[in-house]
Amino acid sequence: MALIVQKFGGTSLADADKIHRAARRAIRAKLEGHQVVVVVSAMNKTTDELVRLAYEVTDRPSRREMDQLLSTGEQISIALTAMAIHHAGHDAVSLTGGQIGLRTDASFGRARIREITERNRIVSLLNKGAIVIVAGFQGVDESLNITTLGRGGSDTTAVALAASLNAEVCEIYTDVDGIYSADPRLVPEARKLPFIFYDEMLELASLGAQVMHSRSVELGKNYNVRIHVRSSYADAQGTDIVTESSDLQQVIVRGAALKKDLARVELMNVANRPGLASEIFARVAERGLIVDDIIQVIHKGSDHADLSFTIEAQDLEPAQQVLEEMRRDMSGMTTEIKTGLAKVSVVGVGMRTHTGVASRMFEALSQANINIENISTSEIVISCLINEEEGPSALRAVHAAFDLEKESE
Amino acid sequence: MALIVQKFGGTSLADADKIHRAARRAIRAKLEGHQVVVVVSAMNKTTDELVRLAYEVTDRPSRREMDQLLSTGEQISIALTAMAIHHAGHDAVSLTGGQIGLRTDASFGRARIREITERNRIVSLLNKGAIVIVAGFQGVDESLNITTLGRGGSDTTAVALAASLNAEVCEIYTDVDGIYSADPRLVPEARKLPFIFYDEMLELASLGAQVMHSRSVELGKNYNVRIHVRSSYADAQGTDIVTESSDLQQVIVRGAALKKDLARVELMNVANRPGLASEIFARVAERGLIVDDIIQVIHKGSDHADLSFTIEAQDLEPAQQVLEEMRRDMSGMTTEIKTGLAKVSVVGVGMRTHTGVASRMFEALSQANINIENISTSEIVISCLINEEEGPSALRAVHAAFDLEKESE
Repeated sequence: MALIVQKFGGTSLADADKIHRAARRAIRAKLEGHQVVVVVSAMNKTTDELVRLAYEVTDRPSRREMDQLLSTGEQISIALTAMAIHHAGHDAVSLTGGQIGLRTDASFGRARIREITERNRIVSLLNKGAIVIVAGFQGVDESLNITTLGRGGSDTTAVALAASLNAEVCEIYTDVDGIYSADPRLVPEARKLPFIFYDEMLELASLGAQVMHSRSVELGKNYNVRIHVRSSYADAQGTDIVTESSDLQQVIVRGAALKKDLARVELMNVANRPGLASEIFARVAERGLIVDDIIQVIHKGSDHADLSFTIEAQDLEPAQQVLEEMRRDMSGMTTEIKTGLAKVSVVGVGMRTHTGVASRMFEALSQANINIENISTSEIVISCLINEEEGPSALRAVHAAFDLEKESE
Repeated sequence: MALIVQKFGGTSLADADKIHRAARRAIRAKLEGHQVVVVVSAMNKTTDELVRLAYEVTDRPSRREMDQLLSTGEQISIALTAMAIHHAGHDAVSLTGGQIGLRTDASFGRARIREITERNRIVSLLNKGAIVIVAGFQGVDESLNITTLGRGGSDTTAVALAASLNAEVCEIYTDVDGIYSADPRLVPEARKLPFIFYDEMLELASLGAQVMHSRSVELGKNYNVRIHVRSSYADAQGTDIVTESSDLQQVIVRGAALKKDLARVELMNVANRPGLASEIFARVAERGLIVDDIIQVIHKGSDHADLSFTIEAQDLEPAQQVLEEMRRDMSGMTTEIKTGLAKVSVVGVGMRTHTGVASRMFEALSQANINIENISTSEIVISCLINEEEGPSALRAVHAAFDLEKESE
């Protein structure tokens, strides 16, 4: 007998039929002899309706009251899921974030989990044979104000509970059936991965793979929780997200990803002095811009430098404003923004010990006649900035170059 | 400066406009120098929607999960009401039943309040200048399971809070503008009462006046909370529900009421022996029937009795079943049910010290050619059972006979 945490997202609970389907999943695991904790998100339409209500009342709802409001979404889901399990003749008890003592800091809308104080309550219910249904995404601060965990919050709740309860696995039921070697909508020959390492998943998440939010993967890594991403609608095995170990075959490249809607900002002829970069990026950070792939080039024999970085296209307007200010304050500097870019990347922990990955990637792009605007690398990632319209063909070229469609085990 | 509790029901919060209207009420009281606690019900449509969701999942939702589900309704209301107050530029904090420590027993769906443990949290927020918005209808049991208080639950929360905080008044905002000497839809000349005593209100509530639920009035009586029932939509003063005192003029009859949809059950020729009535009413109670106005007549020189009582027409079917069983078990007994009845009543604490009320009532009904089926009296009530179609004219006749349309102060 093992303890299993199952997490169902909003689309997996969209109506009564889907709630019954999730309930059957939990009951099946119970009948297989496991103890089962189910973590649920709000039904999609519930969240939409709550947000609509808030904005009918005010155009600037306070974060605390928004959390008070939105947390009802998961509370509705837990009650309905428990009812569905009862309906099938099994025991179930629903618990809110407050009722499991999921304590967070007081950052409404993006709270961080500190501890789960009522672990024993859950264990005691499980030992009595009940399936325990827990509201994801929500917690309480030390004054018992209701907080929410922000994007990917229910996944984070599920992984935190799996860690706290020492669960054998944290199953994430979602509308895709696993993690793929690349987005199968763009690369038809992409392969579902039997497993992926936490660090690889973290990189893929930040590079545009939207299956799991990086916060929950990080938590899984820190507490060594096996996360299994699988389909709500099919029985096939999904993908395990696991600790690196010598038992599991390392591949050089695990997967490839494409991040679209990027723009490249260039600052040219900037007077080079100590503290320059920190001043520039302080201004950029003030506007809340997310920047990536910073490159600084100091021209030989000159006291001026060129500097460039990538932003998301949605941040274009604030970026233009900050550039205008900088040109006013730093004489001689010129700026340029190039839009319509995308980033194609390969990820794999095997790169730490293997060479030649970069050249193989550049060669693949070159053979596909794709021009590389920029290159950035980290320990387990190589990324190339390219024109957006060439994104899908670049992804397919890279995917093929590393034989990602082939079984690696 | 006083502390005021204001309670708004579901119809008073039906949409964003109405929520803003309730918010303005609270803000006005704040600007007049008061500390303000607002208790809210769920928006009507929210409750309907939640009930619909539950019954889509199962035809027999558990009481605990139903409370977990339904309590989200008030939580939505408190968040939206707080947002509306913020929108108008004032400070407000919403609190759930759990967050104010409203502890109840564990009777899901009809829990009884035991205490309010977080009184100091409310006082501290009020002292900082915030309007405190509290979810009505809900509490938590000692294991922090969410409970609901049943019918009239938000009124009960409001009165309990007013008692705990020693409020000057508990204002109940509703869609009628006060308590009337009779239902103004039936008696156009009915008068809005400036005040009414708790005991009178309790009797009127049980006799069909639906403005306040008797549980909250009883709580008000026990803790001497002045309850002021008034309109959400108009500024006119409503009706105070208060303790009897010699300062306030006593009238013999405060109001008249009509309770419709009644049936009279008669058991004839029942063998009279000790424990007979208790046996009969134990059977009736098993079916959950609410009975009233029990009369037992023992025929002179006979060892048989006749017995009659009133039930609500909605209980007719279970009543017929229980009568059938009794006829089978008690030989010789015959039964009869008369439907289409109503009860006209007059209520007033002055009856305790005045005589002649009954005869005046009978005379009024007689002059209106209304036949009396049955009479019952208590310390401050006289009721006559009549044919339902004569109900409105009986109510008007009684109302006129006691000059209830005239100012009594």
